[in-house]
Amino acid sequence: MSQKAYADLITQLKEVSTLSSCASMLGWDERTYMPKKGSKFRAEQLSLLSGMIHEKFTSPKIGDLLGELGSSDFVKDDTSVEAVNIRETQHQYDKSTKLPNDLVKELTKVTTLAQGEWVSCRAKNDFKSFLPWLEKVVDLTKQKAEAYGYENEPYDALLDDYEPGAKTEEVVEVFANLRNELVILLDKIKGAPKKPDVSIVERAYDVELQRIFGESVAQAIGFGFDEGRLDVTTHPFCSGMGPGDTRITTRYNPNRLNDALFGIMHEAGHGLYEMGIDKENHFGTPMGESTSLGIHESQSRMWENQVGRSKAFWKYFFPQAQRLFKSSLEDVELDDFYAAINNVTPSYIRVEADEATYNLHILLRFELERGLMTGEIKAADVRDQWNERFKKYFGLEVDKDANGCLQDVHWSAGLIGYFPTYTLGNLYSAQFFNKAKADMPDIDQQFENGDFLKLRHWLKDNIHIHGQRYRATKLVEVVTGESLSYKPLVAYMNKKYGEIYGF
Amino acid sequence: MSQKAYADLITQLKEVSTLSSCASMLGWDERTYMPKKGSKFRAEQLSLLSGMIHEKFTSPKIGDLLGELGSSDFVKDDTSVEAVNIRETQHQYDKSTKLPNDLVKELTKVTTLAQGEWVSCRAKNDFKSFLPWLEKVVDLTKQKAEAYGYENEPYDALLDDYEPGAKTEEVVEVFANLRNELVILLDKIKGAPKKPDVSIVERAYDVELQRIFGESVAQAIGFGFDEGRLDVTTHPFCSGMGPGDTRITTRYNPNRLNDALFGIMHEAGHGLYEMGIDKENHFGTPMGESTSLGIHESQSRMWENQVGRSKAFWKYFFPQAQRLFKSSLEDVELDDFYAAINNVTPSYIRVEADEATYNLHILLRFELERGLMTGEIKAADVRDQWNERFKKYFGLEVDKDANGCLQDVHWSAGLIGYFPTYTLGNLYSAQFFNKAKADMPDIDQQFENGDFLKLRHWLKDNIHIHGQRYRATKLVEVVTGESLSYKPLVAYMNKKYGEIYGF
Repeated sequence: MSQKAYADLITQLKEVSTLSSCASMLGWDERTYMPKKGSKFRAEQLSLLSGMIHEKFTSPKIGDLLGELGSSDFVKDDTSVEAVNIRETQHQYDKSTKLPNDLVKELTKVTTLAQGEWVSCRAKNDFKSFLPWLEKVVDLTKQKAEAYGYENEPYDALLDDYEPGAKTEEVVEVFANLRNELVILLDKIKGAPKKPDVSIVERAYDVELQRIFGESVAQAIGFGFDEGRLDVTTHPFCSGMGPGDTRITTRYNPNRLNDALFGIMHEAGHGLYEMGIDKENHFGTPMGESTSLGIHESQSRMWENQVGRSKAFWKYFFPQAQRLFKSSLEDVELDDFYAAINNVTPSYIRVEADEATYNLHILLRFELERGLMTGEIKAADVRDQWNERFKKYFGLEVDKDANGCLQDVHWSAGLIGYFPTYTLGNLYSAQFFNKAKADMPDIDQQFENGDFLKLRHWLKDNIHIHGQRYRATKLVEVVTGESLSYKPLVAYMNKKYGEIYGF
Repeated sequence: MSQKAYADLITQLKEVSTLSSCASMLGWDERTYMPKKGSKFRAEQLSLLSGMIHEKFTSPKIGDLLGELGSSDFVKDDTSVEAVNIRETQHQYDKSTKLPNDLVKELTKVTTLAQGEWVSCRAKNDFKSFLPWLEKVVDLTKQKAEAYGYENEPYDALLDDYEPGAKTEEVVEVFANLRNELVILLDKIKGAPKKPDVSIVERAYDVELQRIFGESVAQAIGFGFDEGRLDVTTHPFCSGMGPGDTRITTRYNPNRLNDALFGIMHEAGHGLYEMGIDKENHFGTPMGESTSLGIHESQSRMWENQVGRSKAFWKYFFPQAQRLFKSSLEDVELDDFYAAINNVTPSYIRVEADEATYNLHILLRFELERGLMTGEIKAADVRDQWNERFKKYFGLEVDKDANGCLQDVHWSAGLIGYFPTYTLGNLYSAQFFNKAKADMPDIDQQFENGDFLKLRHWLKDNIHIHGQRYRATKLVEVVTGESLSYKPLVAYMNKKYGEIYGF
């Protein structure tokens, strides 16, 4: 009997996911090619689809099947395909059915309005006017956490939306240690004898040539253009559309090489994860999906930073870049170029931050939003708290709210619990890369030879292929033998920046 | 009560249409940007959507609502919005529910296989091997006609799929007269003293400049790029995605100007129809949809031929073309260019045919497929019948089946009844254009001044805005005061070619 129930469940899930993939397609088009006047109708299409998807996924039929399967033999071995699919579907089903309809509607309404208010308040650096909206979002988000339920603290319930199974208390200490180490690193960099000449990457870089170079790099690391695309958008993203179709986007700055190049490597890293999952066999089920945003980010950041900002990578690619961007790079030495792409400058804006300061931006936000959820921080105090901490971590006085607590869309959009996944990604990335290096001691030589496919396959075999078999914290243990740690990332940064800055 | 039933019906129809528009979006992407390996999954997405669309549209709920509304006051004035929506929905509902599931499945299976066989038989010029498949398709199509039901002959039921309400007997005589006139015209052209120098349009035409020129022309005739797009595909098409979003495609030949230029005008003509329909108020209902393929084709052909191949159009655009394609056009006179784009040469392939011979290709196909349905022609005789008629109408001996009865995909795809809509479009186009000229006697002067928007608005106000208020045969009467006729098209052609060829 449970054989049939399992088959029925899979059929239902595949239908839901296929419908979701249609919505992804429409979302991709909305951000790439849709004509301006199509936006109103596109919203209607997406609203119809999301209603149908929600209705199908939360139908009592799925609840009944899960009820039957939860006590079947399928769940005995908790890493079997069937057990994983049942466990994670149950988890999603519970979360989807726990929120009262009124709360969902109120959240949608308030966050839609709050995002509009955020845009105008940011433009006017007006935290005071945004405060009532922040208060509303915080209040509704607390209600959401209560509706979900949690073991230790409300933030757990929110973090779980993006990082299933992660516990706040497990990350708090790791994050605090990371923060202390980064503040020390930043001090060393500030007082360092050597300074990169960042102007090298701020010369004229023809956009069409940037596209060609970006596509060659993506191709070289394994992003196949017979199963993927690269297009242009204002806000770059990666969308795994389904088996055989993974799309990334970027934006080009004609006067800076970094933005599109590392942006493409970042999104291609996400793309390789999507391509590496066994969707041929598991599409539409948890085994055919990424396990968390943090693990997803670990893949994008590894290709962007551990690979893309490494000396070995550029030993191979720099001569090509010099040929392509002749007038801007012909007089440049590899070492100077390498230093320039790794330049560290504390700055106000998270999305423009370099590899070393990026996590400090995240940790500050994490501390504040967790405080908002425990009640230790009041919404009214967010601006002061932000500015005080920013001074402490970055050594800079925030000059205006647009450069401070009003810079990100997340809180107005109700995305509390999302920020930590960025830093978890960076931590996992360093841990995974350490293990990959231990397994392939000649990895630098591989990169110098232009061979990036061994790493790509290592990631596929060790991480991608598992889908949601393991939650993130477990996966890092299974792959590396160690639990979440700040040490590999800190060691990697100290080594790299020590060489570049000469400390 | 019927107020509520009507509102319910509209809600249901809009959901069905919104879902269909999602499928259109996926279809557009499949033919433009989808990576190669995405095709298998795309088929699954489209199959899921089409199943859901069919299920929603044929649900007994819609049948019940229609039953209630069919005897309500709504249908009293048969050109009212409500009456039109009820009448045409009932018509579609009846057709959708009349075909037995087994027949639909068998048709899908056989035509899928037959299309594959057609590709290989065409490559080998092997009509004999294709014959069993043609026989199967003909047999199943006869069953389809029987299941639909008809008044006079089976072909009526098939034609109705593309040209709702059209009767075979009404077109037979018009088509026969047209054929006779075209054969005479072709003889005159063959024996004419003057011959266009077609090599003018077969020089080098930079593809990027062709795109720019094509977009300027589309823009000038009213195809707004804030509510539309132009992309590249192998087989050009137009897709009205929904309110504010209409997309056309083309393909560029670097050594011939005509293909993309007139292709873009053709598809933009379809696009203007889609844009001209009042989708803001009527999307998803018959009042928000085009009335027939023939009327659709009349719009594309008018912009392609009556406008795009007119002297007045080129008085305005030729100097621009000369500036853009300097090396290919600077030594060319307007009259010679005008003659070259209107060159007539009888040839084997329909899709490459010029304006004068195109309809002969269609009429031949219509005669054969109608004969197949009445039983007067056997599938086994199709090749001989084709070649014999081709000799008679075009004066050419068919050299191989790929240039003859195996050239089109339609029959293998089960599209019997589709061909006549092309010629109906050309006939309507000439009739509408005559009336537009009568209403705007200075239309040539408008074109010479680069003003094409008056015609665009005339078409919108007289044709597009009606949606499905009138069926095609009625619409032409309402707009022109006359019924379907071959005379305006023949008069237009005789005048134009008489001038160009000097007879």
